[in-house]
Amino acid sequence: MVKYFTITMKTSIPTPAIIRLCSLYQLVCRMEKEGIPRASSTELARRTGLPAHTIRKDISFLGEIGDTGAGYEISRLRNHLFSNLGLKREKKACLVGLGRLGAAILASPNLAGEGFRIAAAFDSDVNKLETIKTAIMVFPSHEIVDIVRKMTIELGIIAVPADHAQEIADRLVAGGIRGILNIAPTPITVPAGGCFVRNIDIAGELRILSAMIGNKKA
Amino acid sequence: MVKYFTITMKTSIPTPAIIRLCSLYQLVCRMEKEGIPRASSTELARRTGLPAHTIRKDISFLGEIGDTGAGYEISRLRNHLFSNLGLKREKKACLVGLGRLGAAILASPNLAGEGFRIAAAFDSDVNKLETIKTAIMVFPSHEIVDIVRKMTIELGIIAVPADHAQEIADRLVAGGIRGILNIAPTPITVPAGGCFVRNIDIAGELRILSAMIGNKKA
Repeated sequence: MVKYFTITMKTSIPTPAIIRLCSLYQLVCRMEKEGIPRASSTELARRTGLPAHTIRKDISFLGEIGDTGAGYEISRLRNHLFSNLGLKREKKACLVGLGRLGAAILASPNLAGEGFRIAAAFDSDVNKLETIKTAIMVFPSHEIVDIVRKMTIELGIIAVPADHAQEIADRLVAGGIRGILNIAPTPITVPAGGCFVRNIDIAGELRILSAMIGNKKA
Repeated sequence: MVKYFTITMKTSIPTPAIIRLCSLYQLVCRMEKEGIPRASSTELARRTGLPAHTIRKDISFLGEIGDTGAGYEISRLRNHLFSNLGLKREKKACLVGLGRLGAAILASPNLAGEGFRIAAAFDSDVNKLETIKTAIMVFPSHEIVDIVRKMTIELGIIAVPADHAQEIADRLVAGGIRGILNIAPTPITVPAGGCFVRNIDIAGELRILSAMIGNKKA
């Protein structure tokens, strides 16, 4: 019954709250490792820089966590976030583009994160597919639609040059992908309601820092 | 006189406005390439997803751009943003960590972005420094404080493993760095008012997508 309750709760959480709850999950994982047993929302506010009432409200989106009079029990909160953010169900991800950045991502030990696992990789260069050393299955990019559909892959990482990013996004969407992390240095568009997109832009982040420095004394 | 005016204007722009103006700059660069001569704030709002009044207000932080009755002249707006966001003054950046991700960043042609240029790279592994093929000067990590100070490097990219990230951040700050892009999979802390920090967290972004998918139908 609890399970059913949390599933029905989950349909209405606003995206900014999900993003904040994911950072909170990371924080709480670190606090658990540090051996911190409990923390009040005020303490979580201090550590996140968010208002305490926002934290309480965000957590309440995920349903009842129980007695919070003496603060949140950290391991219980971590488990609450893990289950109710849907991270418990591991999703298959694929990586498109095995250039330097893609290969670095594929080899990264930090990407064995909760909630997803890289199950396939694609590149348009057949030589690259033959020479790359990885335990992950690799395929030519023209098979994206088929493979994503057959393997029921839900997440895609785009790490191709800018001029191919949109074409790859279109293929991922055609295969039924539900979330795209775009690391190509260009924006992509997807059909409305088709899938979620997050962007990582290294040059863009450096430009922001450059503007902040140019703008005022730190 | 105009120059003096814009410099005095720049001290009071809030950080969220700077971040939005940097995205706007990227958009306007693309529009200029596409040959679009003018755009109203309504058109910019459609393309960015931000309210038109926010765009007008953000642009106005940078001082007078002139007649906007028939919309913004794109090349003029691009130049206005470029100059007044402080991107015209190219800052030196350094990269710390020449593992797969660091090496991929160093080799990236997209990082010749406006506002910064990578002038030095560091790694704790001397063998790596001897074997890496790059035109950029490389140094052992224990020289960070000295080199950052001597070369007046203002931006630092941290691409080291999680357990070394804070130590590297401390050294960059000790060298007088003013902005840090942290790509290590862990948060870093810097002294208040010491320098600006932006984080890129690939696993974290995938976790957010995983939660969004777990949370509702796209």
